[in-house]
Amino acid sequence: MNKHRITDIATYVPEGRVDTGTLCQEFGVAPSFIERKTGFRNLARCSPSEGTTELAVRAFENLAERNPGLAERVGALVVITQNPDGRGLPHASARVHGALDLPKSVAAFDISLGCSGWVYGLSICLGFLAREGIDVGVLITADPYSAILAPGDRDTGLLFGDAATATLIETTGAGWMVGKSVFGTDGGQSDALERREDGYLHMNGRRVFEFSASVVPKCVSEVLERNRLQAEAIDLFLMHQGSRYIVDFIAKEIKAPERTPFVSNQIGNTVSSSIPLALASGTFNECNRILAVGFGVGLSWAGTILEKCHD
Amino acid sequence: MNKHRITDIATYVPEGRVDTGTLCQEFGVAPSFIERKTGFRNLARCSPSEGTTELAVRAFENLAERNPGLAERVGALVVITQNPDGRGLPHASARVHGALDLPKSVAAFDISLGCSGWVYGLSICLGFLAREGIDVGVLITADPYSAILAPGDRDTGLLFGDAATATLIETTGAGWMVGKSVFGTDGGQSDALERREDGYLHMNGRRVFEFSASVVPKCVSEVLERNRLQAEAIDLFLMHQGSRYIVDFIAKEIKAPERTPFVSNQIGNTVSSSIPLALASGTFNECNRILAVGFGVGLSWAGTILEKCHD
Repeated sequence: MNKHRITDIATYVPEGRVDTGTLCQEFGVAPSFIERKTGFRNLARCSPSEGTTELAVRAFENLAERNPGLAERVGALVVITQNPDGRGLPHASARVHGALDLPKSVAAFDISLGCSGWVYGLSICLGFLAREGIDVGVLITADPYSAILAPGDRDTGLLFGDAATATLIETTGAGWMVGKSVFGTDGGQSDALERREDGYLHMNGRRVFEFSASVVPKCVSEVLERNRLQAEAIDLFLMHQGSRYIVDFIAKEIKAPERTPFVSNQIGNTVSSSIPLALASGTFNECNRILAVGFGVGLSWAGTILEKCHD
Repeated sequence: MNKHRITDIATYVPEGRVDTGTLCQEFGVAPSFIERKTGFRNLARCSPSEGTTELAVRAFENLAERNPGLAERVGALVVITQNPDGRGLPHASARVHGALDLPKSVAAFDISLGCSGWVYGLSICLGFLAREGIDVGVLITADPYSAILAPGDRDTGLLFGDAATATLIETTGAGWMVGKSVFGTDGGQSDALERREDGYLHMNGRRVFEFSASVVPKCVSEVLERNRLQAEAIDLFLMHQGSRYIVDFIAKEIKAPERTPFVSNQIGNTVSSSIPLALASGTFNECNRILAVGFGVGLSWAGTILEKCHD
């Protein structure tokens, strides 16, 4: 049986903030749009000198500070990103490996996924670690979108924030066991959220919303079924923090508004980092069982159960 | 116990060929360089209209032609590439999923790795499929380098060929079981093989050779050890076909020149496709046990055992 579990999650949120109220004035958007729709009052912003590697390194370092000897113990380093530094060759995990001067025995690879990335990444990592008998893995999310936002684009400019997280996976210790997961892909809609040849991210907000509103509630049911759980057994439905509007919509659809919070109002939609950021905040430490769903770029979705374990 | 095994490998090699003899004249390089060093007489070339998605789709279609109903049976689609179409957002696997109109229940993600990608990808896929109870997976390699070769660059222009492969992984059927693997990363040397801001691939051939000459023979020993095998038990040492020179060097180092062939002289170094291309050629169908090692971009390496199974 697979003993790997999440034992810690560290984060790196850059200090920079963009006030979306000010942006609304620039864009000629009513400030009520923030309250009713996106929910993001501030967006975290890295400095232009901070690339994906830097964010990932900072998240790893914050994790290592709380877990002495981590750099010597880690056996696998996985980075989830679609914005690797340079032109993505070599992979981001190789650059992070080099910057941290990790041992040469470390297996390192990137996974290219967007907002479904962390949930996918858990399954990919846990499967890989179990198969190869590697005890300690670190799963990093780092996808700073600020570098690819078209100036003045209302569809994307009021949404995305920069952040990175580092999730520690070990075979012993208190933390979260990961249940069976559910995955899906709608590649026919891959152009609804894409970086085009102009270098910028283009998003068809309506299509992404309709996609999310349609697949996520179904995904929640399927995750419950796969794990033989009733909805009542879930303390928290932790959705990718795409926007207040989509999270609230899903909350109503699954009939669990009190257990389906929107918590990212000061940071923005941080893509694959949004779920681990929420977990790392400590707000949900009392929960015993969490159902998490990531959804977005691809279009793609992934849901799973996180169950507290005590040793 | 993990029952997943490789049951088929299909390939797509574009029809276009570049004659390296002609290139040598253009570059002012002695033709003996081809015989002594690279070994590549021809390099496969996709047409400018064929992107990574197109190559991957062709490889999948060739696989599906031999495996009726594959599109309905596949549960996971994994694409290994560092040259996704567009700007890598969305991931290549989403575009391939859309182009093939695969079911929405298919899990799809990309792995960003270079020449070590297929061996890594096997472990990642097998671990993921086993963990999630998915019976059928397709692992695609597609990294057409021709689009990122700087015109006139002798270091890269005489080496790389374009190709894609699709590896079918199932829980039953004759094929290859995958043993325990060995991985490694030397991120401190990630700049020895990188795509720079000019958009082109830059390679420090000497550093990549020295790296390969140093780590691959060690990796071979470690793979044997991890799988409790003696070198005599291996029918074929299938090395990433980086160049004739490196393959022959490794062959001598591991004292197995007859069992360590260079076979890519008509195609070129096809990055993560080189090992599955060699396997798919049928040349090694009589082998019962193969030790495969991929190495390159990262710098990164991965080795494993492929053991024939009959049902």
